[in-house]
Amino acid sequence: MIKVGIIGATGYAGGELVRILTGHKEAEIIWYGSRSYIDKRYADVYQNMFQIVDAKCLDDNMEELADQADVIFTATPQGFCASVLNEEILKKTRIVDLSADYRIKDVAVYEKWYGIEHKSPQFIEEAVYGLCEVNREDIRDARLVANPGCYTTCSILTAYPLAKEGMIDMKTLIVDAKSGTSGAGRGTKLPNLYCEVNENIKAYGVASHRHTPEIEEQLGYAVNEEVVINFTPHLVPMNRGILATEYASLKKDVTYEEVKAVYDKYYQKETFVRVLEKGVCPETKWVEGSNYVDINFQIDPRTNRIIMMGAIDNLVKGAAGQAVQNMNLMFGLPEDEGLKMVPVFP
Amino acid sequence: MIKVGIIGATGYAGGELVRILTGHKEAEIIWYGSRSYIDKRYADVYQNMFQIVDAKCLDDNMEELADQADVIFTATPQGFCASVLNEEILKKTRIVDLSADYRIKDVAVYEKWYGIEHKSPQFIEEAVYGLCEVNREDIRDARLVANPGCYTTCSILTAYPLAKEGMIDMKTLIVDAKSGTSGAGRGTKLPNLYCEVNENIKAYGVASHRHTPEIEEQLGYAVNEEVVINFTPHLVPMNRGILATEYASLKKDVTYEEVKAVYDKYYQKETFVRVLEKGVCPETKWVEGSNYVDINFQIDPRTNRIIMMGAIDNLVKGAAGQAVQNMNLMFGLPEDEGLKMVPVFP
Amino acid sequence: MIKVGIIGATGYAGGELVRILTGHKEAEIIWYGSRSYIDKRYADVYQNMFQIVDAKCLDDNMEELADQADVIFTATPQGFCASVLNEEILKKTRIVDLSADYRIKDVAVYEKWYGIEHKSPQFIEEAVYGLCEVNREDIRDARLVANPGCYTTCSILTAYPLAKEGMIDMKTLIVDAKSGTSGAGRGTKLPNLYCEVNENIKAYGVASHRHTPEIEEQLGYAVNEEVVINFTPHLVPMNRGILATEYASLKKDVTYEEVKAVYDKYYQKETFVRVLEKGVCPETKWVEGSNYVDINFQIDPRTNRIIMMGAIDNLVKGAAGQAVQNMNLMFGLPEDEGLKMVPVFP
Amino acid sequence: MIKVGIIGATGYAGGELVRILTGHKEAEIIWYGSRSYIDKRYADVYQNMFQIVDAKCLDDNMEELADQADVIFTATPQGFCASVLNEEILKKTRIVDLSADYRIKDVAVYEKWYGIEHKSPQFIEEAVYGLCEVNREDIRDARLVANPGCYTTCSILTAYPLAKEGMIDMKTLIVDAKSGTSGAGRGTKLPNLYCEVNENIKAYGVASHRHTPEIEEQLGYAVNEEVVINFTPHLVPMNRGILATEYASLKKDVTYEEVKAVYDKYYQKETFVRVLEKGVCPETKWVEGSNYVDINFQIDPRTNRIIMMGAIDNLVKGAAGQAVQNMNLMFGLPEDEGLKMVPVFP
Repeated sequence: MIKVGIIGATGYAGGELVRILTGHKEAEIIWYGSRSYIDKRYADVYQNMFQIVDAKCLDDNMEELADQADVIFTATPQGFCASVLNEEILKKTRIVDLSADYRIKDVAVYEKWYGIEHKSPQFIEEAVYGLCEVNREDIRDARLVANPGCYTTCSILTAYPLAKEGMIDMKTLIVDAKSGTSGAGRGTKLPNLYCEVNENIKAYGVASHRHTPEIEEQLGYAVNEEVVINFTPHLVPMNRGILATEYASLKKDVTYEEVKAVYDKYYQKETFVRVLEKGVCPETKWVEGSNYVDINFQIDPRTNRIIMMGAIDNLVKGAAGQAVQNMNLMFGLPEDEGLKMVPVFP
Repeated sequence: MIKVGIIGATGYAGGELVRILTGHKEAEIIWYGSRSYIDKRYADVYQNMFQIVDAKCLDDNMEELADQADVIFTATPQGFCASVLNEEILKKTRIVDLSADYRIKDVAVYEKWYGIEHKSPQFIEEAVYGLCEVNREDIRDARLVANPGCYTTCSILTAYPLAKEGMIDMKTLIVDAKSGTSGAGRGTKLPNLYCEVNENIKAYGVASHRHTPEIEEQLGYAVNEEVVINFTPHLVPMNRGILATEYASLKKDVTYEEVKAVYDKYYQKETFVRVLEKGVCPETKWVEGSNYVDINFQIDPRTNRIIMMGAIDNLVKGAAGQAVQNMNLMFGLPEDEGLKMVPVFP
Repeated sequence: MIKVGIIGATGYAGGELVRILTGHKEAEIIWYGSRSYIDKRYADVYQNMFQIVDAKCLDDNMEELADQADVIFTATPQGFCASVLNEEILKKTRIVDLSADYRIKDVAVYEKWYGIEHKSPQFIEEAVYGLCEVNREDIRDARLVANPGCYTTCSILTAYPLAKEGMIDMKTLIVDAKSGTSGAGRGTKLPNLYCEVNENIKAYGVASHRHTPEIEEQLGYAVNEEVVINFTPHLVPMNRGILATEYASLKKDVTYEEVKAVYDKYYQKETFVRVLEKGVCPETKWVEGSNYVDINFQIDPRTNRIIMMGAIDNLVKGAAGQAVQNMNLMFGLPEDEGLKMVPVFP
Repeated sequence: MIKVGIIGATGYAGGELVRILTGHKEAEIIWYGSRSYIDKRYADVYQNMFQIVDAKCLDDNMEELADQADVIFTATPQGFCASVLNEEILKKTRIVDLSADYRIKDVAVYEKWYGIEHKSPQFIEEAVYGLCEVNREDIRDARLVANPGCYTTCSILTAYPLAKEGMIDMKTLIVDAKSGTSGAGRGTKLPNLYCEVNENIKAYGVASHRHTPEIEEQLGYAVNEEVVINFTPHLVPMNRGILATEYASLKKDVTYEEVKAVYDKYYQKETFVRVLEKGVCPETKWVEGSNYVDINFQIDPRTNRIIMMGAIDNLVKGAAGQAVQNMNLMFGLPEDEGLKMVPVFP
């Protein structure tokens, strides 16, 4: 059994890690870290876990945890993991960091977009960007995996094959994304109140959202050139789900079949990526509670653009599910162990 | 492997059967019956099943299905199962009927509340009421199980221990129940439209809802006398979940500990019933997607009443989950096989 | 023009006061009091008011406000109004207090249920309970009106005629109420977060909610005896609306027509109370945004109980609308001035 | 008093016309046309109108109605108005058509996108496109006003000033729009069911939605050249509201102040268009129930694009409110008569 420690176990992503790992045959959670709820029973924080998890919350002592755990998930605010990580820890255990601390290779870009100083830039180069469908081989041996952001996972995977194959003009790429509210976390802030979110939709972080450089960097690797895009997130009155609607000009005339073939080339063997049938638009509800990414596209001959669409559950493929997928790769397990959840509908 | 046929596989309860059975190790679905979608691929009806279920929908030929299946789930409108069932079928296969056709022993009561003629009353006596926590032993050998209603499952289990132990005055029992909208089914009726349900709550079927006599009959067995209650269902703007708030006068002064002991006597060993800790009110969200029933109570010394509360997922413990639990019992499997889903939150 | 001051103008009830008074022909708001947002423009707190309200938020200086305003609405936490009110203020202006401070005549009951000391019990006797349909005449001359609670307004009006006429056994009265989330206020507390409320229903404050003694006291006046009831509030995933489902035993056999006649006797001339037609259940959506109370009932001959149902918008008839209705009475204006809003659907 | 007839009074847009006109001082509804509910009381179809509207539904006899009404609103499916309109009717009364029948000047474009034959193309030229802020003067004298679509109203007004002033490259314009569910109408279709819409977001009509040519035509007039755009609508789990997020390349470097000045040039005097303050993103909730359009923009120097955002209530400014605004213009009334509704929050 893989011994798992979670730092930040009482946020929504942490809670989803617990839900998923509870059904994982080869892993057991030995540390429910939560600075806010130390000594409180985990099931008192998340009542759904009553009679399922008996443990109490512990603090976020990474040093001690490193002695006990085979892998540590850090589902913590930006800056935490970078501030506590050191070579000692990495020698004893492996890390899947769900924060943004090691996602961006250029520390200056990180510090500009996140507005904080990076406390351990020496580990950035080593860190593997944990987008399993793209970096599978590197993940297997990584000591430190930077688990991708929710918007970024969805945005990148939706455009990746067409970018990689040079079918779209990257200068024209626009990502208009819509997210459920669990992406905003469990913090008690006014904009997260029920009556503020319900019956409402808005854009936020326009031209300034932190997931922008992450998408740009990863798609840049795909096309081997600098990518600069527009990314606009929106807050949707629902608990879970991200839908990315992406627009780009096609570099040349292509048919539906040609584009479909490109998607299939990259995704046909992927367990968790479903390229839908012609004309079917992805809906977040169809992937809810699961690790799937549903993708499709529509060519518009009038404008010579392609509209790409991708849907995920932000807490699963966008956070905890992908983190477990990374763990499975790192420990040589079947990639879908613990992740066979069928989407819940309705 | 148990061969399972589903008649009515494209309703919400049928869809939930498919979701649950897909993760069941000892069962495989061999027949997706759906009169409305014959020859259509199941995954085209429920897109969440894309690349998970490849089968097409078949008709509702019970005779043919009886030859092939070890068990048939009928998730069909009232009257269907009663109109097609015969001795031949029951000799070849076993039935878990999710409709109300065999729940009520007194055919006159059935015909009065449901307003239809019962086409095969000869099987009513044999049918076992499939409330696993109460009728576990009888279910094991049953050929025909009447799977309880959603409201009734929640309402009965919430009051059952106190009724059985004679702690409450049954003449004073009032059940005020609240349900998510999936309980209304997938029929395209005006009151089920998004804009009619959303941002709204209403009672319906006041003093006339069909689950009333079912609750009365089952609680009547518990107390060995005729029970007549008020049952008021309400429609809540959410997909899943039933909360029953039940009121009854206590027959004598009792302490919290005495009542708790009674609940524990009946439920402490039950996998799927969780009697919550003192002061914690059940919430439907904490059981969503799972087969749990969460129960708790509050004594009010001012009125000498006890307020009992129970929460279930109407599509799981209130329909498909309980049906699978019944199947597990009927086939000698662990009762929780395929039902270990952890509640999804948020 | 009546000069209106609002203390607590940035809570949800305060915001609704502003919305309603903006359309009131005989009143103008001269003071937007908000301790949390002093010097901030009101429209920056409530963006719906952009280009409608230009004023900035002021502090909660009741003394100064009393010099300027003809009437002050206090939409403040329990205890505030009682702590600042004095005879000087009451000599200069009139008060409609939307908190509970002056609703309960027995100060010991107030202090027990609210857990705070009452700082100005000397004004309790003078205060008029501002349930317009019941206390209309006393309100006209009041200096100090205690605006009823949201649950209480709905609960009392739904049962009042039958209580007053002695048709129901008050010892059997049970109120099961369901409320939208705006009733919980705009405070940034974990249980009010979108993801905690959405797709969920729960009871809370079972046998202990503070609106209980208020309902008991007012219905006690109707029947001239002490009333003790069960009142159970529930939180519903919607912004606005309260539905009260009330159960009581009938004292003698009555027909639909007899009960209807009693309701009509009290409400036929009431502008804001609509007794619905036979068989129509009140729905909160049908009164949303308006000052209406929709009421109906169902007799159950099987149990000899009557089920009464009432629906209001908790922020209008349950708070700000009723407060303006009280103001209209106090200043001799048509009772519906500023309150002719047609319910918004959908 | 203006005598108003409504054909299609029982759809959501029709219902909103009734709500708004009920509060209009200079108009009275004399005909509630509804083919589906003939002879049924209007308040039985929309219970919010109980005791407010006493009339029964009538058929859709335009000829007869033309004799009685000063203006007829047709809130009917595409093709209806075109199939019944004739010169006789137009000589007797004036028409505000809420359908698309007369919005598009090129009948071939209409017939292609709508897939139906236009039955009275002879009136297309005469019809005035009823976007009040753009065509105010022409509307005053029109016999036949084509009330704009919901998406189109929002999409056009959001980009109009920058298009008109030549600031943006129209070939790069992309409109990503999000709508509440009332825009889908009150038809009982599976995709409109509560459980299908709730907790879900999806795109639909990608590269093929019928509002596309309408936006293109109107923005084409603004720039005096053919405009071809991408328009992608999305269905959001909320009752009301449209948010349009629009992307376009700037033709030259501009500052925030320069763009703001352009918006102010067109909208500063407009009652119903609110250009928000710097950095504030429009939210649909802030305009709900009102006739406002909230607009703002963000320049992205990294991509040299501008992101424009606009929010409306689809049933008010996107349908019934704008129709009444048109009527006010046609009859020489203050443009905001009956439309002073303050947005409802929360």
